[in-house]
Amino acid sequence: MAKPRPMTDADYEALALGAWILGTGGGGDPYHSLLEMRTLAREGRTVWLLDPLDLEDDALVAVVGQMGAPLVIQEKMTDAHVMAETIRLMERHLGRRFTAIALWEIGGNNAFQPFLAAALLDLPVVDADAMGRAFPQADMTTFAICDLPSYPWTMVDIRRNTIVFVEAEDWYWMERMTRKACTVFGSVAATCKAPRTGREIKECTILHTVSKAIRIGHVVQHARARHGDPVAALLASEGGLRLFHGKVTDVYRRTTEGYLRGSAEIEGLQEDRGSTFVLDFQNEFVIGRQDGTVRVTAPDLICVLDSVSGDAIGTETLRYGQRVTVVALPAPPLLVSEKGLQHVGPRAFGYDVNFRSVFDGAAW
Amino acid sequence: MAKPRPMTDADYEALALGAWILGTGGGGDPYHSLLEMRTLAREGRTVWLLDPLDLEDDALVAVVGQMGAPLVIQEKMTDAHVMAETIRLMERHLGRRFTAIALWEIGGNNAFQPFLAAALLDLPVVDADAMGRAFPQADMTTFAICDLPSYPWTMVDIRRNTIVFVEAEDWYWMERMTRKACTVFGSVAATCKAPRTGREIKECTILHTVSKAIRIGHVVQHARARHGDPVAALLASEGGLRLFHGKVTDVYRRTTEGYLRGSAEIEGLQEDRGSTFVLDFQNEFVIGRQDGTVRVTAPDLICVLDSVSGDAIGTETLRYGQRVTVVALPAPPLLVSEKGLQHVGPRAFGYDVNFRSVFDGAAW
Repeated sequence: MAKPRPMTDADYEALALGAWILGTGGGGDPYHSLLEMRTLAREGRTVWLLDPLDLEDDALVAVVGQMGAPLVIQEKMTDAHVMAETIRLMERHLGRRFTAIALWEIGGNNAFQPFLAAALLDLPVVDADAMGRAFPQADMTTFAICDLPSYPWTMVDIRRNTIVFVEAEDWYWMERMTRKACTVFGSVAATCKAPRTGREIKECTILHTVSKAIRIGHVVQHARARHGDPVAALLASEGGLRLFHGKVTDVYRRTTEGYLRGSAEIEGLQEDRGSTFVLDFQNEFVIGRQDGTVRVTAPDLICVLDSVSGDAIGTETLRYGQRVTVVALPAPPLLVSEKGLQHVGPRAFGYDVNFRSVFDGAAW
Repeated sequence: MAKPRPMTDADYEALALGAWILGTGGGGDPYHSLLEMRTLAREGRTVWLLDPLDLEDDALVAVVGQMGAPLVIQEKMTDAHVMAETIRLMERHLGRRFTAIALWEIGGNNAFQPFLAAALLDLPVVDADAMGRAFPQADMTTFAICDLPSYPWTMVDIRRNTIVFVEAEDWYWMERMTRKACTVFGSVAATCKAPRTGREIKECTILHTVSKAIRIGHVVQHARARHGDPVAALLASEGGLRLFHGKVTDVYRRTTEGYLRGSAEIEGLQEDRGSTFVLDFQNEFVIGRQDGTVRVTAPDLICVLDSVSGDAIGTETLRYGQRVTVVALPAPPLLVSEKGLQHVGPRAFGYDVNFRSVFDGAAW
């Protein structure tokens, strides 16, 4: 049984780096939340990281995250107080108190939201999340894959607007309702998702993803410090694959219906010269085609990294001229199960393509 | 002090007729709700009508109504159980019980929603509403005009989706949030609006509008029974004005963003031959122009009636060939006050026109 441990400043720095890579282009750059977390830590607000396997079966766990379009989240931020308020509102609605906070989404900015709220509420954070990466929709979580109830949710914006989604027909309806509300709020809102028991957290999340993100952050940091190749170090550490290396030559991007949608074109350099890689995104990178042929799809993690620094590049910060390396990291097993693929496979994103993992070895 | 009285079958029949006229084209045809009310009455469920002036100051009063596009409400109906559930949900949220139910909107179908819920919940209905007619938006109510709090609201759809809007920045935000949610539900939802005290009902509603609608219904019924002119009888009873008489020659209508918007063209007959009247609507009739000149605007009640039967014609049932009489009924004084006009005057509907009542006698 692992002891709870206090999160350190170094942990947060590494978490920001690693979570942004696990965001697969989405989830929003954690930078602003890292700044806020630094401030809270400097005020002496220590957050403890809890191993999910140490949770009591009947523990009551809050699950929080921002929702919205990454591009908007960069400009119109919620903060720790707004996020904490979603949890307080849920406690008032339930008439019960939470014992811990878990992550909705390890990928991107949402990796920090539980820590920000926890710093104010003095609750531990559970080392687990419901995606193992970032995804654009609530019905793409492990909770949805495991058919756990989707409700209640609370939602708070930066004004005084607060909503409790008391009940929903299913995950699809919860997603529809909350997405529209989020759009009304200007495509960004703070949410406390359906409360979970300790047992549900242990059985229906991706375990230890905070530790994984911190590990990834450290690997990249160390490679940089040694003037090594951070991308190569990441791939070696996580069993990833290098898919393409090139220069961003075109980006088509629009913020619509609470999502950031579009595509990016990358022209090959060096060993990939003469070849073109096109990535479609719906907040996150969903599908990559090389010279017109599908090469990789969700739920495999498709990450676009700065070829030199190994920093993740988000779908909202992609721009002409960037030298990037497209890599794939393996998806957690639950996501590539038959039930998992119904929720997060390419068809769930509207692509008439069967999922075949780049890690299966077979060519497309 | 008036005694509470039981609503009779004859009351409901007259209410349906009168409320539809007060709907000024919107609020939806009460016919289907009348059918449901007849069924509940036949089961022995008697609803008592309460004079608002008899309410204790600290009584807790529910205010309910459907929201959505009238055209949709004709096809996808909520029912008494859904409406009652909005009240039960509000009671759970508040931790208090209601003593009575008031009307959100006397105009159209919403005249019946409090009676349908009351029949199931065994609560009296208060003879007052927050519009004195129908309007498309929450910020167009007497509660908004009186600057009462806009929250909380509960919303229930015909599935299992239920929402509590716990707090809102203002009436405008409450309208935006709930309208979007309503759109997600297919442009129809049942809602329990912000609870009111007895004192607020007495001071910030249009009083005795249920009685008024029933009176209007009786006037039209009696004129028909005597083979008289129901339109003339209505105008005599309510101090109304006949504006135009003609044949509907064109209707432009679209259901968009949870509203029914459009315009209708009427070619003059008899004394109005050679003249054209154009009515714009946003759920309700908002503005009428005769030969290009503004003749009447909200909040004056603009009603389109079947020239023979005196039946109201809704913005969703207007069609080519109908012989209609356009009439105006006086708006309640609160609506034409300076503060009232900020909420329900022509500018609130996007028209760059000052309000001048047709009852002021001055020509436009």
